[in-house]
Amino acid sequence: MHDEVEVGARVTLAEVAKEAEVSPSTVSKVLNGRSDVSGATRDRVERLLEVHGYRRRSANAPRSPLIELVFHELDSVWAMELVRGVETVAKANRTTVVLTRSGTRHAPASDWIEGVLRRRPLGVVLVFSSLPAEMKHRLRSRDIPFVIVDPAGDPDPDVPSVGCANWAGGLAATRHLTDHGHERVAIITGPEDMLCSLARLDGYRSAMTMAGLTVDQRLVRFGDFQVRGGFTHGTDLLDGPGRPTAIFAGSDLQALGVLEAARVRGLRVPEDLSVVGYDDVPLAQWSSPPLTTVHQPLLHMAEEAARMLFRPDDPGRAAQRIELATHLVVRQSTAPPQGGPGRHPARPAPLGQEGTPGTTVGAGA
Amino acid sequence: MHDEVEVGARVTLAEVAKEAEVSPSTVSKVLNGRSDVSGATRDRVERLLEVHGYRRRSANAPRSPLIELVFHELDSVWAMELVRGVETVAKANRTTVVLTRSGTRHAPASDWIEGVLRRRPLGVVLVFSSLPAEMKHRLRSRDIPFVIVDPAGDPDPDVPSVGCANWAGGLAATRHLTDHGHERVAIITGPEDMLCSLARLDGYRSAMTMAGLTVDQRLVRFGDFQVRGGFTHGTDLLDGPGRPTAIFAGSDLQALGVLEAARVRGLRVPEDLSVVGYDDVPLAQWSSPPLTTVHQPLLHMAEEAARMLFRPDDPGRAAQRIELATHLVVRQSTAPPQGGPGRHPARPAPLGQEGTPGTTVGAGA
Repeated sequence: MHDEVEVGARVTLAEVAKEAEVSPSTVSKVLNGRSDVSGATRDRVERLLEVHGYRRRSANAPRSPLIELVFHELDSVWAMELVRGVETVAKANRTTVVLTRSGTRHAPASDWIEGVLRRRPLGVVLVFSSLPAEMKHRLRSRDIPFVIVDPAGDPDPDVPSVGCANWAGGLAATRHLTDHGHERVAIITGPEDMLCSLARLDGYRSAMTMAGLTVDQRLVRFGDFQVRGGFTHGTDLLDGPGRPTAIFAGSDLQALGVLEAARVRGLRVPEDLSVVGYDDVPLAQWSSPPLTTVHQPLLHMAEEAARMLFRPDDPGRAAQRIELATHLVVRQSTAPPQGGPGRHPARPAPLGQEGTPGTTVGAGA
Repeated sequence: MHDEVEVGARVTLAEVAKEAEVSPSTVSKVLNGRSDVSGATRDRVERLLEVHGYRRRSANAPRSPLIELVFHELDSVWAMELVRGVETVAKANRTTVVLTRSGTRHAPASDWIEGVLRRRPLGVVLVFSSLPAEMKHRLRSRDIPFVIVDPAGDPDPDVPSVGCANWAGGLAATRHLTDHGHERVAIITGPEDMLCSLARLDGYRSAMTMAGLTVDQRLVRFGDFQVRGGFTHGTDLLDGPGRPTAIFAGSDLQALGVLEAARVRGLRVPEDLSVVGYDDVPLAQWSSPPLTTVHQPLLHMAEEAARMLFRPDDPGRAAQRIELATHLVVRQSTAPPQGGPGRHPARPAPLGQEGTPGTTVGAGA
C-alpha cells in the first residue's frame, strides 16, 4: 500500500507519518478507511491530517467510479425524484450510484464516513443533511467533493449546496389566488424551525401586501408538511371564524389533507374553496381535482448537485450555493371565489383533457 | 492478479487458461470484469467458462460489501418502497446498496454486467426484469447470487424470485364488494399481456361466481395500471349502459383515475360508487376519500429478495419462488350500494380519526 507519493498543499504524507510516528503505509491505510489500523493510531493520524490541512492530490488518489448518495430518510414522495436526477448524471459520466440511508437531518451516522473512505467515490451528494466539521475535514483531506441538496433552504455556508427559490414560490402561489380575486387567503406553511417555511410565508405576506390585502393572523398556520398537518389546519380553518375562500397549503401533502378536510365538509374544490400546493411531486397531478401547485425542480436540483461533483476544482466551490427557480403549475384546484369579483365557477375540465399540461407561470429565482 | 487458486466444480481456472491459450491471470481479469483484456480474448474465455460450467468458489472470490439493485424504471410510486426494503437488509448485513437503472423489462443493458463483474458485489436484486441466459451464466460462473422481485407474477423458472399472490388479491377485493351487496361490479385490470392482470381478473371472476353473480363482459376492462387508464375506463363505465355500483380498479393509480372520473360526473365516493384499488402504495391513504385497497407488501418483498442473497448456498435456490400474501385494507372508498341490500351510506369518517389504521382482512397466499 505504499504506491502513492503524496504532495499535499502544506504537508506530505511522509511528514504526517513521521510526526505521528507511524509508517507512511499506515497513513495511507487511514486515508483509505481501512480497518486494520488501531483506533488510537487512526485518531492520531486524523488529527495531524486536520491540523496540517493535509489534502491528497486527486491525480494520485485511487478512485472508484461511484457517486455516494446519502439520505437520512427514504421518503417515497420526494426521494425518488432525487435518486433519478443523480442516477442520470452518474450514468452520463459512466459512474454508478451508491445509495445509503444514514443518520439524521443533522449528520450521517459516524460509521458512514468509514464506508465512504473505503469505497473512495468520486464524490458525495447529501440530501437534506448537514455535515459535521469532522466529516467535512475527512472528505476534504481525501479530496472527495461533496454537495448538499437542500430544498429546505438552510444551507451551511461552508458547504456547496443546491436549493430552490422558496420566497418566490410563496409569492407566486399567493399572487395566483389574489389575481383570481380571493381576499381571504389562508396559508399553512411548514414547521416554524425550517427556513423554507419562513421564506414561503414571507412570499405570501408580500403577495397579500402587493394586492392591497391585510393578513388575518388567524389564517396563518404552521404545519408539518405532511397530509395530517393539512387536514388538521384545513379543518380548523374551514370551521373557524372568517373562513378563507382559498388556502395556500405549503406542500402538496398538506394540500391533499386540505382536499380531504373539504370533502368531509361537503365543500367542492375549486368551486367552494381554492387550494394551492407546493412541490409538484408526481402525485399532485393525480389528486381529485389535480392540484395547482408550485413546481420545485427536484430532479434538476439533484442533477445540478451531481454535476457539481464532476466540475474541475475551482477555489470558490466550497462556498457555492445554487438556487433554482420555481414556477407555478395551474391545474384544477383553483378558481375565482364564488360571489367574488371574478365569479364564474366553471366546471373543471376533466383529467382526460389534460393533454396540454398545466399552464406554467414563471416565478423567477 | 495471480493471487487466486481456483477449484471449480468441473474445471479449474488453469485448465480454462490452457484451453484458451492465455495466462491464468488473463482468465482472472475476465472473471473480475477488467477492461484490459481484448474483446476477442474475453469472448473466448467467457465461452469456455460457460462450456465447462466453471464456477468460482465463493471462499476464494474477492467480494465487495455491496448489493446491486437494478431497476429498468425508477417509478416514483413503486420504486422507493423496494429501495427501502433492500437498503434495510443491506444495512443489517453491513453492506451498501449500488443502485442502477438499466435496460428494459426484458434485460439490463449489456454494459451493466461488466460493471457488476468489476464491482464484485455479494449479490444482485433485479426489479421487474428478466435476465438473458448469457448474463445468468456470467453471474453464476462468478458465484454471484441473484434474485428477481417480480410482483407482476411472470417468473423465469430458472431464476429465484419473490412475488405476490395476485389471484388471492383479486378475490379479496371483489368479495369485499359483493359482501357489501354490490351486484354490478366492474373490473379494470392491467395490460392483457401481464400475468398479474390475468390472475387478478380470475380472482374477480371467482369471487363473482362465489357470490352467485354473473360477469357482465361489458364491465371487464384491460387498463394500463396508470391513472389515465383508470380515468378513461372509469369514464366509459360510468357513462355506459348498465352502470356499475362498484369498480375494482386493479391498481391504486387506476383507482385515482376512477375517483377523478366520478368527481367530474358529480358522483360521490363511496355513496354513489365504491372503488377498490390494488397495491396500497403510500398515496392510497392520502386520496379523497382514502382508498380501500389490496396491500402488496412491496417493502417485505424487497427485504425477502435481499435476504435470499445472504442465505447459505442451497441446491434448490436456483428454482426458488416465494409468493407473499396480500391483504385487503378497508378505508373509505367502499360502502354498500345506495338502494342495495345493505343500504346505509354512512358519512365517511374524517381522516383525522384514522388513528386506527384501516381494517385488515387476510387474503392468504
